[in-house]
Amino acid sequence: MNRQELVNLIKEKQSYLCVGLDTDIQKIPKHLLSHADPVFAFNKAIIDATKDLCVAYKINTAFYECMGIRGWESLQRTVEYIPSGIFTIADAKRGDIGNTSTQYAKTFFETYKFDSVTVAPYMGKDSVEPFLQFPEKWAIMLGLTSNEGSKDFQLLETGNEFLFEKVLKAGVQWGTPENMMFVVGATQSSQLGHIRKLVPDHFFLVPGVGAQGGSLEDISTQAMNKDCGLLVNASRAIIYAGNGEDFAIDARNVALTYQQEMAIYLRKMATAVV
Amino acid sequence: MNRQELVNLIKEKQSYLCVGLDTDIQKIPKHLLSHADPVFAFNKAIIDATKDLCVAYKINTAFYECMGIRGWESLQRTVEYIPSGIFTIADAKRGDIGNTSTQYAKTFFETYKFDSVTVAPYMGKDSVEPFLQFPEKWAIMLGLTSNEGSKDFQLLETGNEFLFEKVLKAGVQWGTPENMMFVVGATQSSQLGHIRKLVPDHFFLVPGVGAQGGSLEDISTQAMNKDCGLLVNASRAIIYAGNGEDFAIDARNVALTYQQEMAIYLRKMATAVV
Repeated sequence: MNRQELVNLIKEKQSYLCVGLDTDIQKIPKHLLSHADPVFAFNKAIIDATKDLCVAYKINTAFYECMGIRGWESLQRTVEYIPSGIFTIADAKRGDIGNTSTQYAKTFFETYKFDSVTVAPYMGKDSVEPFLQFPEKWAIMLGLTSNEGSKDFQLLETGNEFLFEKVLKAGVQWGTPENMMFVVGATQSSQLGHIRKLVPDHFFLVPGVGAQGGSLEDISTQAMNKDCGLLVNASRAIIYAGNGEDFAIDARNVALTYQQEMAIYLRKMATAVV
Repeated sequence: MNRQELVNLIKEKQSYLCVGLDTDIQKIPKHLLSHADPVFAFNKAIIDATKDLCVAYKINTAFYECMGIRGWESLQRTVEYIPSGIFTIADAKRGDIGNTSTQYAKTFFETYKFDSVTVAPYMGKDSVEPFLQFPEKWAIMLGLTSNEGSKDFQLLETGNEFLFEKVLKAGVQWGTPENMMFVVGATQSSQLGHIRKLVPDHFFLVPGVGAQGGSLEDISTQAMNKDCGLLVNASRAIIYAGNGEDFAIDARNVALTYQQEMAIYLRKMATAVV
């Protein structure tokens, strides 16, 4: 999916919600365990219940990888089931020397046909560039993450700026707003406005809303740009909203609350731009 | 495998060679393509030909992941085929927020039963600690890597030291010499002696020998400690040494050259310690 298509999708749906499918077989409703592929049965129900409310699904590959080969089968079924026209993110945080990163890019863009994959910056330019060589595909590079450990290195001062600022500036050089996004954690709201000034045009994938405590209002007022420029992810807060037969309805209700709040911020932005 | 077992293995075999199974179906000898699982057929032959010469096998997961589910089948067959008593490394460079890193740790330590997995440091302490919770299992954290892009962030100055030095020091705090190793690239030979002073006791996984140009002598003279403390990896230089029917013999010959050179450095070290 290219950038204009993503921007159009956000306007049509009045949403920049990304639903995170961090599906843990230990946490899904018990009645699904009789299915041949319980994880896919769960994801299918969540997708059916939320596909009109979100613009993206993010699959956290770790939760599938830990189940071995049947986990990858569930992942493949899930990504194939997501309706075309919804942006797909492999949240895999890959990155290695160039020839290895190329294999990872092929994995997620060609083998599983995701639109995008999250990448880790520590190994530098040649570890990220292979992800930028595929038309209408995206690298989503870690900038400032939502976890406690973001302080350990990302907030180290290097010269007159933080490491994460150097990372963001490098990413802007390596990619374009058409093939590069950045992960910026919602729990870092004090930094969001500053980061948007530093990186005016690129999309941000913002995790950490909901279970991790980030505020949708803070994110939206501080980091939205004229094209929206945001994909705000909620995982556990949506997919585990309920645990009974009606779990998908519970999930939809939470997603709807997010979407309705997002529509308000999008209207404000549209008014401000006019 | 615990540290003492690894040290004993190195002494017995007079080797600290790690053979990297970066197996690319495009590069293996054509006569293997008629096998039901050509990648496993290749790995099996390489393992049979080198298992008395090396102390570790490193599986670069990217090359398996890009083949989809049958790639994971090849990976699983390969790791199960490696004789017990040889150290196994999942070169996967994972790292994410805590509950996700726990899933990755389960993937490699429990689902596939590797001894160790390489991890990326950018997300900090809570992204690495889950890998340190499994008895006799190891996290191998990126320190200073062998690629060109290592200059982009790892060699940034933060205060009075480089970022990679902060990363190594943090890793020493988070783990112990019994559950943490570091990736230190062989192409960074000017730094190796300094890094060994900074981190005297931990094992280093050293990639970049062979195809990437690092020197085994430089690594060994500068970074060996009293327990050896090194796993030196060669991938392409060994596994693609030949491309005919005799490819495994060609691989063995290269591995043997490395092992014989390593035996010299190990004897020197033993003499120096006595």
